[in-house]
Amino acid sequence: MSGEFTRIARFLAHFDAPRAPAGPGDDCAVIAPPRGELCVTTDSVVEGVHFTRAHFRPEDIGHKALAVNVSDLAAMGASPAWFVCALSLPGDFTDRALSGLARGMSALAREVGIPLVGGNMTSARELSLTLTAAGHVPRGAALLRSDGRPGDVLYVSGTLGEAALGLRLLTRGRASGEPPRRHLVRAAVERQRRPRPQVALGLLARRFARAALDISDGFAQDLSHLCQASRVGARVRVESLPIGHTVRMLVPTAGRRARRGTTAATLRPLDEATRLALAGGEDYELLLAVPPARCRRFEAACLRAGLPVTRVGELVAGTGLTLLDASGRPLPVPRGFDHFARPRI
Amino acid sequence: MSGEFTRIARFLAHFDAPRAPAGPGDDCAVIAPPRGELCVTTDSVVEGVHFTRAHFRPEDIGHKALAVNVSDLAAMGASPAWFVCALSLPGDFTDRALSGLARGMSALAREVGIPLVGGNMTSARELSLTLTAAGHVPRGAALLRSDGRPGDVLYVSGTLGEAALGLRLLTRGRASGEPPRRHLVRAAVERQRRPRPQVALGLLARRFARAALDISDGFAQDLSHLCQASRVGARVRVESLPIGHTVRMLVPTAGRRARRGTTAATLRPLDEATRLALAGGEDYELLLAVPPARCRRFEAACLRAGLPVTRVGELVAGTGLTLLDASGRPLPVPRGFDHFARPRI
Repeated sequence: MSGEFTRIARFLAHFDAPRAPAGPGDDCAVIAPPRGELCVTTDSVVEGVHFTRAHFRPEDIGHKALAVNVSDLAAMGASPAWFVCALSLPGDFTDRALSGLARGMSALAREVGIPLVGGNMTSARELSLTLTAAGHVPRGAALLRSDGRPGDVLYVSGTLGEAALGLRLLTRGRASGEPPRRHLVRAAVERQRRPRPQVALGLLARRFARAALDISDGFAQDLSHLCQASRVGARVRVESLPIGHTVRMLVPTAGRRARRGTTAATLRPLDEATRLALAGGEDYELLLAVPPARCRRFEAACLRAGLPVTRVGELVAGTGLTLLDASGRPLPVPRGFDHFARPRI
Repeated sequence: MSGEFTRIARFLAHFDAPRAPAGPGDDCAVIAPPRGELCVTTDSVVEGVHFTRAHFRPEDIGHKALAVNVSDLAAMGASPAWFVCALSLPGDFTDRALSGLARGMSALAREVGIPLVGGNMTSARELSLTLTAAGHVPRGAALLRSDGRPGDVLYVSGTLGEAALGLRLLTRGRASGEPPRRHLVRAAVERQRRPRPQVALGLLARRFARAALDISDGFAQDLSHLCQASRVGARVRVESLPIGHTVRMLVPTAGRRARRGTTAATLRPLDEATRLALAGGEDYELLLAVPPARCRRFEAACLRAGLPVTRVGELVAGTGLTLLDASGRPLPVPRGFDHFARPRI
């Protein structure tokens, strides 16, 4: 492994030079002020918690570390502006692996147009990356969690449950198979390894939505966060959830197998595919609360932009999340991810 | 240990609420734009690299994590504006320890007037904190490393070598003793555990200095960084270095002992106290390059403000750092800290 300053130079070589007044190499990056307000987020990905080196290539790790941060910018309706990257590298992390990490990160950075302006590199026993990303929004235009009101219609972008399914397939050693299963498995695993931050939708939604967040801990838990922040309740029709295609195709079988030998009394009222969509987490889709009067225009704009969103319920007066089945009967609400409640991988 | 969201709430309770439009709790913090430019830095402190829990109380760790970041702001001449904090916590890190960490960090945050606007908490095997801090400078006023010119006079603030001595005393189990040694030991250890970022000096120096950086990897190595960035060389008179009082008092003895039994040929030309001052690192003092015409006013301003600085040499045309003894003869240049060259603690 090469020395600290050589490693930093090699890592930086993969990135476009920022147009900031002063980029990496000084005590601080110097950045021109935004016109509006600055949205800032920081998020870590840690070996053994958010990824394992057995299941993620260095490119995936670099991509994911940036994606989870940019997803937070998207959830505010912010346009990506810059990021800094702190790397903690164990002794067995090779120069080649570091290049892979940089490639994955820089490819996404280029795609969403966010320059790396600075960082830090330190030795550590476990591999982790902590990025801080900033975006710009016009003054007062940021999509907060706390601005939802009763009556707002809830939309979720893309599909749910696939990233969690991908993780399950990886950790249970079921991430292979013959066609046609193979391409479904690959798609689910790709959702886990390479989440896609919904930047374009965030920018579009800023014109219509009142509140938003990104789904990282699981739809149900993140929606509860929005409800708490907005001091409202929510009602969601489970059959309207956009459960991912790979989940629909791959999970029912696993579900049926798991239930063999169980009695009727132990059957869970939520099927496994729905549970993954509600509580799986790491979807990095956006959850949006749109006032009813703006829904038609919002849906039309999403359609024109080719950004799929699904109406899943609405905010209501009161507190808490109510899940309803096709007949309007309440269903139990599964818990999402808690970093200190149970191990992730 | 309590759950993730309880822990976050407990941690945040130690900090003053920021005056930002939206602080912790949303996907991003929303921050009003600065008038001038934004200086941004990110720095990690990692267990086993920057601290051990055997030698640092949680309060010290929280303080140090923020101090090293604020020191980077000071080195740019920036006024501290906001920071975000990403915590990676192992399973055995108690709620009580987390409160201690928050107390140490929030005390320094209050002292330098920098609000916590957001963060992240994740589980991990080893304890680490990655902070990103931002400060404001008027447009074009940031003190860069790259603006030094031949002829500029080099100043260093405070004293050197004490933090490295403190670390040595801690790791060698020599961090106790009877008076009068005890208070010297405590002072050195305090420099290691609780570095003081030189914010006031940075703000003052912005009016006089051309280039600056903070001393984290060791005076000699950090000065070399300034020289490389400015494409100049430097000449430093070793006898003018402000070696810390505790180093002068405690190290000569250790130095004499270590030399017993060695032959004249193996004697190092730099004595141990000087070596600590030149290469020890973690001083978090500022190194400043001031044009000769402004030196008298700069020194007078520092004197009035009660901020000690010492003239140690000058930038010269060419490359590289030359160390001179009292007779003007060159001395060897020791190496500073490299994260991937050798273990720290």
